[in-house]
Amino acid sequence: MSPADTFHVYDTTMRDGAQQEGLNLSVADKLTIAGLLDDLGVGFIEGGWPGANPKDTEFFKLAAAGEVPLRNALLAAFGSTRRAHGNAADDPQVRALLDARTPVVTIVAKSHVRHVQDALRTSLEENLAMVRDTVAVLVGEGRRVFVDAEHFFDGYLADPAYASDVVRCATDAGAEVVALCDTNGGMLPSQVFEVVQKVQDATGAQLGIHCHNDTGCAVANSIAAVQAGAMHVQGTVNGYGERTGNADLVTVVSNLQLKLGRHIIDPDALRNALHLSHAISEITNIAPYGRQPYVGASAFAHKAGLHASALRVDPDLYQHIDPALVGNSMRTLVSDMAGRASIELKGKELGYDLTDRPELLARVVERVKGMEQDGWTFDAADASFELLLVEEVDGARPRYFDTESWRCIIDSSPGDLPALAEATVKIHAAGERHVATGEGNGPVNALDHALREALSATYPELASFELIDFRVRILDAATGTDATTRVLIETRDADRTWTTIGVAPNIVHASWLALVDSFSYGLLKRGVQPR
Amino acid sequence: MSPADTFHVYDTTMRDGAQQEGLNLSVADKLTIAGLLDDLGVGFIEGGWPGANPKDTEFFKLAAAGEVPLRNALLAAFGSTRRAHGNAADDPQVRALLDARTPVVTIVAKSHVRHVQDALRTSLEENLAMVRDTVAVLVGEGRRVFVDAEHFFDGYLADPAYASDVVRCATDAGAEVVALCDTNGGMLPSQVFEVVQKVQDATGAQLGIHCHNDTGCAVANSIAAVQAGAMHVQGTVNGYGERTGNADLVTVVSNLQLKLGRHIIDPDALRNALHLSHAISEITNIAPYGRQPYVGASAFAHKAGLHASALRVDPDLYQHIDPALVGNSMRTLVSDMAGRASIELKGKELGYDLTDRPELLARVVERVKGMEQDGWTFDAADASFELLLVEEVDGARPRYFDTESWRCIIDSSPGDLPALAEATVKIHAAGERHVATGEGNGPVNALDHALREALSATYPELASFELIDFRVRILDAATGTDATTRVLIETRDADRTWTTIGVAPNIVHASWLALVDSFSYGLLKRGVQPR
Repeated sequence: MSPADTFHVYDTTMRDGAQQEGLNLSVADKLTIAGLLDDLGVGFIEGGWPGANPKDTEFFKLAAAGEVPLRNALLAAFGSTRRAHGNAADDPQVRALLDARTPVVTIVAKSHVRHVQDALRTSLEENLAMVRDTVAVLVGEGRRVFVDAEHFFDGYLADPAYASDVVRCATDAGAEVVALCDTNGGMLPSQVFEVVQKVQDATGAQLGIHCHNDTGCAVANSIAAVQAGAMHVQGTVNGYGERTGNADLVTVVSNLQLKLGRHIIDPDALRNALHLSHAISEITNIAPYGRQPYVGASAFAHKAGLHASALRVDPDLYQHIDPALVGNSMRTLVSDMAGRASIELKGKELGYDLTDRPELLARVVERVKGMEQDGWTFDAADASFELLLVEEVDGARPRYFDTESWRCIIDSSPGDLPALAEATVKIHAAGERHVATGEGNGPVNALDHALREALSATYPELASFELIDFRVRILDAATGTDATTRVLIETRDADRTWTTIGVAPNIVHASWLALVDSFSYGLLKRGVQPR
Repeated sequence: MSPADTFHVYDTTMRDGAQQEGLNLSVADKLTIAGLLDDLGVGFIEGGWPGANPKDTEFFKLAAAGEVPLRNALLAAFGSTRRAHGNAADDPQVRALLDARTPVVTIVAKSHVRHVQDALRTSLEENLAMVRDTVAVLVGEGRRVFVDAEHFFDGYLADPAYASDVVRCATDAGAEVVALCDTNGGMLPSQVFEVVQKVQDATGAQLGIHCHNDTGCAVANSIAAVQAGAMHVQGTVNGYGERTGNADLVTVVSNLQLKLGRHIIDPDALRNALHLSHAISEITNIAPYGRQPYVGASAFAHKAGLHASALRVDPDLYQHIDPALVGNSMRTLVSDMAGRASIELKGKELGYDLTDRPELLARVVERVKGMEQDGWTFDAADASFELLLVEEVDGARPRYFDTESWRCIIDSSPGDLPALAEATVKIHAAGERHVATGEGNGPVNALDHALREALSATYPELASFELIDFRVRILDAATGTDATTRVLIETRDADRTWTTIGVAPNIVHASWLALVDSFSYGLLKRGVQPR
């Protein structure tokens, strides 16, 4: 029996999390996020609402075509009960859920009398029929069905009998789990504990919990529900979600596993929690929150002072868990990954054994620390880190070409036409000077074209490199357009995909640095010698 | 009897909150913060640790001279117990506490056997004597004494008898309250509840609670302690503090007052909570957290189209409290999940009544949907949305200037020097053609300078506009540098802050669009007519 049968870790980052202000996921983003969640080992991934918008529909089309390969997790499609007075089997919304061909379907059902009457504008009896019919049709088509009982806690406080009836109705019709939702997020843990326990006793249903953080208690409410008997917990990565957000899934899972001894995630996978959180921040482009429990940059950071000497004696006296359990580390300095151990580990991962080279290691640590101070981050740019490592190990990085200068001109076009960019690069390779100009719809595109053109005769291998992703983050945003810019470029060829980084006040300059690293790394990995 | 005698709201923003990474308060900052906290109506304000650093010493000197005028709150000085095997009356640290001449003194005491033995390196008996002596001396000098029992919960789990002895010792010596501290922040609410209840039963002491947020449960743990009998709750504004921070005092107080019906703060003062939170953010220069419960910018923001129609009917169905109770307000976000209802609500919020204009409303909805398809998003760019609305309502947006052309050149600099950018804009305003060139460290910076220069004679008002944030998101990243770019620009003047958006394949073009919107919106809101 897999853990997903006894206790459900259910992620809704891509559906309910996507309700967050400023968060907008493309189909490509969703594919990447699904893979990351699968690596963490969550049991269920809610992919979106098929039919609600073109992106979600497209995502489930790809999933049905087998293009969302999940090793552990099961994909869930989210939707609602059939329309009032309609037929569930013919309901377009229910059809869209079935067409998504996911093993799990989660439907939202109303369980608060006022919401049924004032928002849905139907009768209490018809609402029960909607739940019953929709669950039955989906179960009849072989789906595992979970029901999100919306506004459950407010509903229970208003009319416990009716709210419980919704749970019974769903369960009787074949729903595997009924997740009680604190949709408005107004509950406190003591209330959640009491209501879950009572509903459990009254209905005997398998219950889940879905919390929002409006009282700052989403995590505690989720834990309280599990302590009262819930066997299914929903949340989002980084606590994304509407208003104050949803329960932060990593925090909930870490608390359950590390504090309450529930084995719900492979401990080795949990060591990837920090990576997961940061990788998803990069995708959403929402700056990570330093004070986030477990995975925040400050979560195990200690200000030097009162505790410093005792910290050295026994760090366990001053931290609530070993930070390595979630992939984090204790910090007394302002640096993310510049600890020796993590650099050594990273080197090992890339095939460089630094164990017996303490001086080299110290040099790399110092350099990385200095660069991180300036805004570089090697977490997401392995290729640039490897080039740095090669430079320290071999004394220099391979010099495929020397840059004399580059220039980029962006000109407005008449009317509403898109502006164009033109770049000229002057470089030296194979003993000759090469000058080339490239055009593009943006500066990086133009520089990419110009640099390829200038190098094509010397390194025909470049023709197989393709830039597939380009990300920009503005650092120290408080200074507006004077800020530092960090650019990440992802490139691929037939054999691999790699990411490089550039940091500079000027976005075009930062892009140029990442581009040069991208070309150099690609040539290095193909075994090309400088010509 | 004042509320401060029956239930204590105790703020430690200026002492424990100041342990936060990157937070540094001047004496002037502390004076301002004390005034703001007093306005909120907290009972006690911990001002710092006299003698620990010059700023704290100076602050208490000013306080003793009557220069920290508090209407309601009492000032507390924080320090520790006397040294091991010393005399409390002569202890320099205790003397510094007395010299601060505050009505309240709070001392930290060890209550965990391992911390006494391994960190303090003294005997368990001597530690008890240190607590007893120090409290007695301070009480003898007429101070109200509170004791912070450090690492209490971990200590209680390790050795409940000793931890309880510390509480008894402090109380017997005259301490008014013993605040149980979850110093490492590793507790969950169920544990806190149980321990507080047991200690209360065993000692009969007046207990307080001091929580950190390492499990994401600082607020819930504080509430659990109060439910178990604690009559004194500590926290910090905005949850500032070491690692993951302390319990957010505004959230704790709001929960106690608005959810559990405890009257601990004047309801009119609580309506200032949002102002307090933002004003203190301005002082600390730590960006406010949008998802902060109660007072966050997103705390009452709704995105889902699903809810918008019902929101109109009865907002109470979708919000856990009336946001006005904490000085916040409901916001509707315009997004691709939006239908007519949310556009109508948003219009209303901005002062445009669209209720009886279904055709106009339909036109705006269509336009927003089409633009969102192309990558625009208005949920983060109210100002651009308002310009769009003005255009549809009035037939055209105010045209402050016409663009003939713009151009930007980015040139590499020799060696490792940062690249520079130069922009030239040609515009028409006030019947004349203006050509201006600006330089900057990046293209947007250069365009901003050039456009200001070109418009300065016609619109001197622009001088007060300042670009304060600039964000870039690459959309449909799967296509690499051919992707669409979304730029958000945040601008402020003396009266307001606004965000505008630009979307284009070319990042510089997108920035230009956002910049033009930024200037236009700023002029519009100042009531400037096109010249």
